Amino acid sequence: MLFNYRVIINILGTLLMLNGMFMLSCIPFSLYYKEGDLFSIILSATITASFGFLMWFFTKNSKNKELRKRDGYLVVTFGWLIMSFFGSLPYILSGSIPNLTDAFFETLSGFSTTGATILTDIEAVHKGILFWRSLTQWIGGMGIIVLTVAILPILGIGGMQLFVAEAPGISPDKLQPRIKETAKRLWFIYLGLTLTETVLLWVGGMTFYDAINHGLTTMATGGFSTKNASIAYYASPYIQYVIILFMFLAGTNFTMTYLVLHKKFRKVFQNEEFRFYSGFCLVAGLVIGIVIFSQGHDTFEKSIRDSLFQVVSIITTTGFITADYTSWTPFITILFVVMMFFGASAGSTAGGVKIVRHIILVKNSLMELKRQLHPNAVIPIRLNGKAVSREITYNILAFIMIYISIFALGSVVMGMLGADFNTAIGSVATCLGNIGPGIGDVGPVDNFASISAPGKWVLAFLMLLGRLELFTVLMLFTPYFWKTN
Amino acid sequence: MLFNYRVIINILGTLLMLNGMFMLSCIPFSLYYKEGDLFSIILSATITASFGFLMWFFTKNSKNKELRKRDGYLVVTFGWLIMSFFGSLPYILSGSIPNLTDAFFETLSGFSTTGATILTDIEAVHKGILFWRSLTQWIGGMGIIVLTVAILPILGIGGMQLFVAEAPGISPDKLQPRIKETAKRLWFIYLGLTLTETVLLWVGGMTFYDAINHGLTTMATGGFSTKNASIAYYASPYIQYVIILFMFLAGTNFTMTYLVLHKKFRKVFQNEEFRFYSGFCLVAGLVIGIVIFSQGHDTFEKSIRDSLFQVVSIITTTGFITADYTSWTPFITILFVVMMFFGASAGSTAGGVKIVRHIILVKNSLMELKRQLHPNAVIPIRLNGKAVSREITYNILAFIMIYISIFALGSVVMGMLGADFNTAIGSVATCLGNIGPGIGDVGPVDNFASISAPGKWVLAFLMLLGRLELFTVLMLFTPYFWKTN
Repeated sequence: MLFNYRVIINILGTLLMLNGMFMLSCIPFSLYYKEGDLFSIILSATITASFGFLMWFFTKNSKNKELRKRDGYLVVTFGWLIMSFFGSLPYILSGSIPNLTDAFFETLSGFSTTGATILTDIEAVHKGILFWRSLTQWIGGMGIIVLTVAILPILGIGGMQLFVAEAPGISPDKLQPRIKETAKRLWFIYLGLTLTETVLLWVGGMTFYDAINHGLTTMATGGFSTKNASIAYYASPYIQYVIILFMFLAGTNFTMTYLVLHKKFRKVFQNEEFRFYSGFCLVAGLVIGIVIFSQGHDTFEKSIRDSLFQVVSIITTTGFITADYTSWTPFITILFVVMMFFGASAGSTAGGVKIVRHIILVKNSLMELKRQLHPNAVIPIRLNGKAVSREITYNILAFIMIYISIFALGSVVMGMLGADFNTAIGSVATCLGNIGPGIGDVGPVDNFASISAPGKWVLAFLMLLGRLELFTVLMLFTPYFWKTN
Repeated sequence: MLFNYRVIINILGTLLMLNGMFMLSCIPFSLYYKEGDLFSIILSATITASFGFLMWFFTKNSKNKELRKRDGYLVVTFGWLIMSFFGSLPYILSGSIPNLTDAFFETLSGFSTTGATILTDIEAVHKGILFWRSLTQWIGGMGIIVLTVAILPILGIGGMQLFVAEAPGISPDKLQPRIKETAKRLWFIYLGLTLTETVLLWVGGMTFYDAINHGLTTMATGGFSTKNASIAYYASPYIQYVIILFMFLAGTNFTMTYLVLHKKFRKVFQNEEFRFYSGFCLVAGLVIGIVIFSQGHDTFEKSIRDSLFQVVSIITTTGFITADYTSWTPFITILFVVMMFFGASAGSTAGGVKIVRHIILVKNSLMELKRQLHPNAVIPIRLNGKAVSREITYNILAFIMIYISIFALGSVVMGMLGADFNTAIGSVATCLGNIGPGIGDVGPVDNFASISAPGKWVLAFLMLLGRLELFTVLMLFTPYFWKTN
């Protein structure tokens, strides 16, 4: 058999059982706020876990437990899909989002850590359900970590083997044995940062409920907020700076955070991706801040803060908002659209292209000029002092080309479905990059409610594509994937 | 010495002398229409040719006549620049375009066969000068042919060695000896088609003057018109269909036309680029035509004609206009912006990325998925039945990446200089692609007069970059180009 379907179903069943258990963690908030969403949460959890149990139970005795490369593509894609289908139950059963299209869009927006929402009045949603909404992003973030560390390097997707090669405990030769260990360490960092941020926000004046919700969605670079106005609801500079800091950390390669925790600062500051990432956030934040200050945006501090917040939010693909960048200047709007194609660091929970791929792209382009002058010389690119193989560079170039093609094609499709020019490119750029807010009708102060139902399915598909680094999903559409040999 | 400056200056001098002679060909129109531009034309020609003569004269006795690869980059880039600087003299001296920025923009727009104009009232310009304007495009087209056949393959730029490998008389092994022969043959086709179109337009009711002007600018895929309303001025369906046909031919690889003239039809229909190019023009023309017809644009025939005209005009990077596509639907506007990135066939006078590069890109992206599944297999791409080397694919990928990066960067810069979002991306896409009309303030029924002076210089630079296939110009900005060894 080409695929080990039993093992695949077994894993998907396990995921659904976990999903059901996570749903149960909404119960305390449901009980505390007594808004009547308790029953729908318990029912959703039961249905999800039962389905998962059945899938797991009937496949647990398979003789061949081996999961091969081909199976990996199916597990990842269908894992995200099945989580999102069952994950939309709480919305549907509680009546918060009665429509399947909307509920699925919101859930996949959660699990893909995108943060695009169809809710027009977030604060009207019951607290238990709203916690589930934040939790989907956090679970999605955990999924991304294991995907990055354990699965993508094996599938050989988009140079991932390269970026995590420096992850603690991973050596390209013997990946398998230490994967569990690495994933665990990074999960601890993820959990630790989430708890730290929650406490800092709580101390800063947020309710405990809002603090934990924002903690969950920041670290996932998700961007779902419990407030209609997103972080603009909180006037406190302290809260906004805390969130800027944690968005920045969430967009940093977790390996770097691990190295900092082990006081290996030099390696961090020598990392080219980290240097560009932190440098760009700082410079863009300051420059845009000064520009809007000179145009009378607000006080100097507030201008810099607003600028820094939006820049870090878009670069890290989080998508929280404290100000509407599309209302600044046309130049800044263009800059933000361009930034949507950056993506933060590989090995973080951020979506998008990832900065390290751009670094390799730029280096390769410059090298190509040199190669042209000396066609017989072998001139490799170097990243962090090490030569990058031609195969990986090639793969990354193909990745970026496909990314741009999908963006162009997606924009055309959204246009065909009735979106105007800005909305089309804004919605596609933000969903494919797992960011959240776009431009046009889906700008920072708008939401995705106005998008047509077919448009929502297209955007949902783009979120999935972007989140799973394109290749994982696209592979399923190739004929040779389904053929023996 | 790193460069053979004497030979470079000698060639540039020769080019300027030719430029001066071409200027003299405006005299008949100047004499016939008696609008007072005769003196300025003769003066411009004299200055240009004298400068050229001096450059040629003082370098003609150099011992080392060898032109090396490095010299090629300088000749090409400075050739286009010096032609444009001296080519703007007729505008300046006649007072038609007194401002240097505007005159240079208009001239480079001519020599690069872009067709973007800063003139708000074209019909007010004296006929002698206006003929020069059309002629710059035709000369630019001749330059492109020799560039494509003789220079780019040697420089190894963007896979050009591949696309012209099938040109009559060119074999990759012994390129040099037959280049002159090939260039001559293609020039004859170019000249022949120009004359044929001129006669057909004249017969169709254009004045002889308008017919020859449009003949010159069609075959160069330039798009300068002698009328403010461009081809919309001519209500005659015959004239519009003739221009559609010749735009299409101008965007076809001249090798294909050569093969057709020698009745080798099979090779033409087997050519993958030609198949996609002709198929796309037809399908996009029909589909968009049916869409606008269903929206009440006009009669069925006129809807199809308008659609076909704009599609072929943009795809071939000509830029003539018979209808404002930005007034159709948002979806169609997006589609046209996407089409600006197509470019027509390699080996034609069209600008832009070129369709064959996209074909290789798409094939490679699909192959990359296959390679991922079978990492140890060597899976090459094939074009017209022949395997494409990895080096060329690599170079093409880098070309497209740089193209997109320059587009993004250019849009940001134009935004900084005050353009709104649509104008910024529209002007950059159209100038980099050597097309002409964009969207926003530089849409089909507008012109580039409203762009700020710095913006015009940026766009002029982009025209040059796009026309010289990026690498030729960018090479001059690398440090190693100027270093020995």
